[in-house]
Amino acid sequence: GVLEKEMTDVTDVWPENSVAFLIGCSFSYDGALLDANIPLRSAEQKKNVPMYNTNLKCRSSGSLSGNMVVSMKPISAMDVAKEVEITSKFPHAHGGPVCIGRPESIGIPDLNNPDWGDAIELRPDEIPVFHACGVTPQSILMNSKVPFAITHSAGYMFVSDLPADKVP
Amino acid sequence: GVLEKEMTDVTDVWPENSVAFLIGCSFSYDGALLDANIPLRSAEQKKNVPMYNTNLKCRSSGSLSGNMVVSMKPISAMDVAKEVEITSKFPHAHGGPVCIGRPESIGIPDLNNPDWGDAIELRPDEIPVFHACGVTPQSILMNSKVPFAITHSAGYMFVSDLPADKVP
Repeated sequence: GVLEKEMTDVTDVWPENSVAFLIGCSFSYDGALLDANIPLRSAEQKKNVPMYNTNLKCRSSGSLSGNMVVSMKPISAMDVAKEVEITSKFPHAHGGPVCIGRPESIGIPDLNNPDWGDAIELRPDEIPVFHACGVTPQSILMNSKVPFAITHSAGYMFVSDLPADKVP
Repeated sequence: GVLEKEMTDVTDVWPENSVAFLIGCSFSYDGALLDANIPLRSAEQKKNVPMYNTNLKCRSSGSLSGNMVVSMKPISAMDVAKEVEITSKFPHAHGGPVCIGRPESIGIPDLNNPDWGDAIELRPDEIPVFHACGVTPQSILMNSKVPFAITHSAGYMFVSDLPADKVP
């Protein structure tokens, strides 16, 4: 259940009998949000998005269990409904927000201390919008003390040639 | 531009040459929200919803101009996305929220002092969700100093036999 090593090439440590799988990422709808004139501050400031452990229990499966990890976007109060309408159309990439405002209600004590990624400014006219995050499986792997696994590093995604707005 | 009289029967004061029109009301989707287990505190407490003047300018038309009036629902942070997805499907009844959180960003200085209707408790896990309100035309009529008009009283709606979820 602990992080042992980070490396840029996993070819040499890949077990013969292992299976790789790819899951959606909320970055998939960043383009759609920009097209709707919803700015993305983390990208603008060349930072990774802030990610947080929550108290939201995932449905367990066999020996795997744990809580959801979420990413946060600061969104102008007048743009939040539009953000929801857009992201809800990407169910393959985490879909709409799981929580809007009130970080403490999902077990996030301090927005300025993300568990992964970089903290980001929240302006007076904005509220924090939380989406399910693809780092959740990593958190689950560690929580479930899986003997061995290779995952991506938070914020370093696999980019495919599938169109972002099409359910694969 | 001032309220002259409130009455329960307007038959006797109805000008021969006047035209009546009905516009949608956010109450139309209250049933859909309840079906999705989103509670409606104002209705539960047998109060009218709180309504507020805003600084959101409506598009003017001829001699008519003025700002949008909004109603407010306190919604649990984890239910807000669902609330948006549901209400967005009722474009004939004001549709999705115009603002979520941050009342001051649309010119509402104090949630406890609504301009119409009754104030309502906002709990720690909730944020205020603002929808365009059918009281807007009244506010516009007064702002535009229309010589004579009859309107509904805020919260006392015309109930039709059209199904709520069908665009008429």
